[in-house]
Amino acid sequence: MQLIDGKHIALTIQHELALEVQRRVAAGKHRPHLAAVLVGNDGGSVTYVNAKVAACERIGYRSTLIRLEDTVTEAALLEQVQRLNENAEIDGFIVQLPLPKHIDAQKVIEAIDPRKDVDGFHPVNVGRMALNLPCFLPATPYGILQLLERCQIKTTGKHCVVIGRSHIVGSPVSMLLARNAEPGNCTVTLCHSRTQNLAEITRTADIIVAALGIPHFLKADMVKEGAVVIDVGTTRVAAPETKSGFRLHGDVDFVNVAPKCSWITPVPGGVGPMTITGLLQNTLLAAQWK
Amino acid sequence: MQLIDGKHIALTIQHELALEVQRRVAAGKHRPHLAAVLVGNDGGSVTYVNAKVAACERIGYRSTLIRLEDTVTEAALLEQVQRLNENAEIDGFIVQLPLPKHIDAQKVIEAIDPRKDVDGFHPVNVGRMALNLPCFLPATPYGILQLLERCQIKTTGKHCVVIGRSHIVGSPVSMLLARNAEPGNCTVTLCHSRTQNLAEITRTADIIVAALGIPHFLKADMVKEGAVVIDVGTTRVAAPETKSGFRLHGDVDFVNVAPKCSWITPVPGGVGPMTITGLLQNTLLAAQWK
Repeated sequence: MQLIDGKHIALTIQHELALEVQRRVAAGKHRPHLAAVLVGNDGGSVTYVNAKVAACERIGYRSTLIRLEDTVTEAALLEQVQRLNENAEIDGFIVQLPLPKHIDAQKVIEAIDPRKDVDGFHPVNVGRMALNLPCFLPATPYGILQLLERCQIKTTGKHCVVIGRSHIVGSPVSMLLARNAEPGNCTVTLCHSRTQNLAEITRTADIIVAALGIPHFLKADMVKEGAVVIDVGTTRVAAPETKSGFRLHGDVDFVNVAPKCSWITPVPGGVGPMTITGLLQNTLLAAQWK
Repeated sequence: MQLIDGKHIALTIQHELALEVQRRVAAGKHRPHLAAVLVGNDGGSVTYVNAKVAACERIGYRSTLIRLEDTVTEAALLEQVQRLNENAEIDGFIVQLPLPKHIDAQKVIEAIDPRKDVDGFHPVNVGRMALNLPCFLPATPYGILQLLERCQIKTTGKHCVVIGRSHIVGSPVSMLLARNAEPGNCTVTLCHSRTQNLAEITRTADIIVAALGIPHFLKADMVKEGAVVIDVGTTRVAAPETKSGFRLHGDVDFVNVAPKCSWITPVPGGVGPMTITGLLQNTLLAAQWK
């Protein structure tokens, strides 16, 4: 069994990005500039956004954090989005989700200029992804593709079973791994809450992507010998003995599944660190495409 | 074995559309208006476009056919598209594909206003489909959903195997049948030219959608007893004894597969007639959404 070291791969890619920024600046081009809009004070969201801003600083991007009260009106948020669309100094930006309930998140996503939509959530980017056209890939699926690529895991002709059909992970991963590209060219089965005989299906898989958000759901008897297992789960489970007060639990029963695998991602340190990396790569693309 | 009578279902839906047009007109609303742009004189394209225009007339839509020489420049075609985008009298329009090689078809598709893109090929519509938002569904996948619905074939929890990953049929059908909707909620496996052990996979399918374009590809030993088989293939095979000089061959070895099926579409008379119906339904939606 080999561990897919997402932390190491993420740092490697971020190092490559830092070098690319230096080359850009040396060639007289501008530093990529990411803006993040954070509404309210949700603990998870604050942590994620701060990590994104810190990563930008670390690799030499400019970054701008815009914090709005959770009482902000939808109209005011849409105006903020419009200002970022029009601000030539900003290459790409994100609006951190979730948003307060009085705001229509889909409306906000669709207000973002697709050319600055570095989260890849705008329908134009989703459609371009499905059509295999240049676009911003959503960060987590993008990260999964890169884990497979950097570990030189062959995907062509393999049977990949994706568990979970969310719009931000399961569904796009299933599209990306099926398309005629490298990594890709998998036979892909997309499973979800209505799937019957799930264990029968996962036992036929060469590659399993578990993205359903139920801790330790994937058990050893659901996995065949030699499978590649990608664990997207990051459920916070209370753990008073830790400094943060919680532990991240993956969707895979790692202790028992890992011995059967050819490759497996740990949680934490697998897919998670790649998410910010995908965002940083999209921001560079946005700067290059401008 | 029951035949899925696409011709009958298409006529039923078109009759319903004709009644809806009458209701609209009686209520003082305008008749839906479809425009079709046909470049050149390709035999298949001329036949398809004429059939679309004739169907519009039959159910009381307005229709406009715009024919351009196959020497038309890309710029001139894009100007034509722009005029149709701006023409308030046109609810929806299509540019018949394929286009001559000197024209970038993707550029033309992306020039169409997504609100008039009744073929559902614009990335915005593809993305909205993937995100389960209101949109124009591409006609053939839309037709397949309706065949399943009108025959009251249960899809939830069923294993659907789609053969072929084209952007206009296989790939969107796989998304539509996997999503949380009715028809839908299938466990979907998307197979293609790089798939290994295809017969093993199809034999586990409750529903098979064959959309690869190889006549009589799906044989009886690839299908389990009681499966539902949807045949999207329409390959023209020379047949001098017929009036047209050709016969349409499906992707399914119908004679041998049909006895094993619970439901199966014939070719011709299965999916084919539903394609125009989907276009007509999208045109009505375009008129309603305006």
